[in-house]
Amino acid sequence: MSLTYKGAGVDIGRAADALGRVRERIARTKRPEVIGDVGQFGGLFASPGSDMTLVATTDGVGTKLELARLLDRHEVVGADLVHHCVNDALAMGAEPLFFLDYFATSQIEPAVFSRVVGAMADACARCGTALLGGETAEMPGMYAPGTYDLAGFLVGAVGRDKVLGPERVREGDTLIGIPSTGLHTNGYSLAREICARVAASQGGTLKDVLTAERSELGGHSLGDALLATHRPYLREFRSLRDAARVGAIAHLTGGGWEGNLPRALPEETAALIDRDAWEIPPLFTLLAELGGVAEQEQFDTWNMGIGLVAVVTPEDGDAALAAVPGSVALGRVVPHGGGRRVLFA
Amino acid sequence: MSLTYKGAGVDIGRAADALGRVRERIARTKRPEVIGDVGQFGGLFASPGSDMTLVATTDGVGTKLELARLLDRHEVVGADLVHHCVNDALAMGAEPLFFLDYFATSQIEPAVFSRVVGAMADACARCGTALLGGETAEMPGMYAPGTYDLAGFLVGAVGRDKVLGPERVREGDTLIGIPSTGLHTNGYSLAREICARVAASQGGTLKDVLTAERSELGGHSLGDALLATHRPYLREFRSLRDAARVGAIAHLTGGGWEGNLPRALPEETAALIDRDAWEIPPLFTLLAELGGVAEQEQFDTWNMGIGLVAVVTPEDGDAALAAVPGSVALGRVVPHGGGRRVLFA
Repeated sequence: MSLTYKGAGVDIGRAADALGRVRERIARTKRPEVIGDVGQFGGLFASPGSDMTLVATTDGVGTKLELARLLDRHEVVGADLVHHCVNDALAMGAEPLFFLDYFATSQIEPAVFSRVVGAMADACARCGTALLGGETAEMPGMYAPGTYDLAGFLVGAVGRDKVLGPERVREGDTLIGIPSTGLHTNGYSLAREICARVAASQGGTLKDVLTAERSELGGHSLGDALLATHRPYLREFRSLRDAARVGAIAHLTGGGWEGNLPRALPEETAALIDRDAWEIPPLFTLLAELGGVAEQEQFDTWNMGIGLVAVVTPEDGDAALAAVPGSVALGRVVPHGGGRRVLFA
Repeated sequence: MSLTYKGAGVDIGRAADALGRVRERIARTKRPEVIGDVGQFGGLFASPGSDMTLVATTDGVGTKLELARLLDRHEVVGADLVHHCVNDALAMGAEPLFFLDYFATSQIEPAVFSRVVGAMADACARCGTALLGGETAEMPGMYAPGTYDLAGFLVGAVGRDKVLGPERVREGDTLIGIPSTGLHTNGYSLAREICARVAASQGGTLKDVLTAERSELGGHSLGDALLATHRPYLREFRSLRDAARVGAIAHLTGGGWEGNLPRALPEETAALIDRDAWEIPPLFTLLAELGGVAEQEQFDTWNMGIGLVAVVTPEDGDAALAAVPGSVALGRVVPHGGGRRVLFA
């Protein structure tokens, strides 16, 4: 027997071909700080000054990947990955600088790869973020045919004295919410399980459940609603920052409200939220109903229609609301009496 | 039916438990530039000055993961991930600053997770690199039971006028090689396929083939040899930098010699390598023999015993060799006459 690496399932030419298809879109993400070209052992980026703080974050998109694959919507998860990272960085007050991706699969399909990474590049370009590098891993046998996983890494920067966080928050501060476009990239395992059970109870396929038009969703399908792109909040972040004294920002992702909002609050405080401040989008109520998901579990898993919460000085609440169309006054920071730290009234 | 996120296979408490087990080891990687604690939306790190260039790199460990799992050696791949990234950064001339990891699996096993991420933390500590953050993704159904994937992301820094690269290399420069400890993290799909075929031809299991003592390996098993940790070259890099004028460095990873060495060379040059400069370790010759792998394919897939190649000014060749015990004079940079760019003589 005579073996080659290609024969063992790894074709380095295939990875190069896949990358070649998106090279131009990646090139469009270039910023003045980027030094040199792709193909080096590391991406080079001129350091911001020592008066700045770097903010580094890493994320995946979870099992939304499975839905994107099933419904052939690979672009969505590419953009999601970038937006998730950008939102985490701005939650610390940072502007994004550069992004790197990890794409892993059993056998690269250049057509799929270029759709995913092309969408990443486009999302980076829209967010003014350089796509500085990436790793494409072909791992025969590690992933089921057609499946892939993604990880994103982003570095941003914020003025050293402008880092957002709980230490800038006071009791009485106002909580401003900005709507999400759907589940963003969290709670998909629960949503998928709900859809799978519905399919089983109806004797249909998961795809049937995902593609059926739903009156509750204004005629859209569950699949369409579940594959809405994770909303990037960069523009809204900049508007807020210019209009109001922002103390902290919470990006509502894995762990939902209780898992994320307290990260923006000082230890001895809680968030008092007016449940009537916004209308929970029909996607969430429909999923909850189909799955019989208890209300607390919903808020502990999903964002329930609010993707970002900014904590602002009470005097600046109106200015903040005016600066971001669609934003809502959710409530305020109150003393913490023990127990859960997100209280709904 | 009433569903919970946990019921759908995602247990956020399990991730927290897993992370809790390694918190102390992560804390030991802290550097003075690290700001604040874990648990924020992004890791904070004081920016180096604007006279510095940031170097960002991302890597995985490929299907070495499968061997580590089969032989219960999870620590190895944790350290590998860090070392791979560190070596890529120093190939650009950079000292590592901080590292982030992505750990994805179907269901977190806290015992395995803490071995992998604990080993990452220890490797970071040894390399003076802050483990600044990470993402732990539980994706039911995405990975086969017991399997996981890893991605690493590292940012380093180098003085703006000290970035290494082909533009600093001249014809006649000396190539210095530093030994590897084995396959490092590349070419495992080929190695695994070879072992699987041997197992099939012997009617045994893959594990039998991996655990059998081999006289060719001095009594060690293939599994032991294949699970040697990817060697970090940080100490050697520093010694080289102090002792010699280094123009460029190639980290021999995916794509082997032809895939990596040219990345350290100017376009119109090639590397002339003396094949007798070092002895190819028995692991490579054994694998090649068992798999009937052609010589060029070996050098295009594996590092063949040399993990790092530094290009130094000819006058500094002896000083470089003296500075790094075990290093060898591999050859020199010559004009490129067309065709392949790594020539063996």
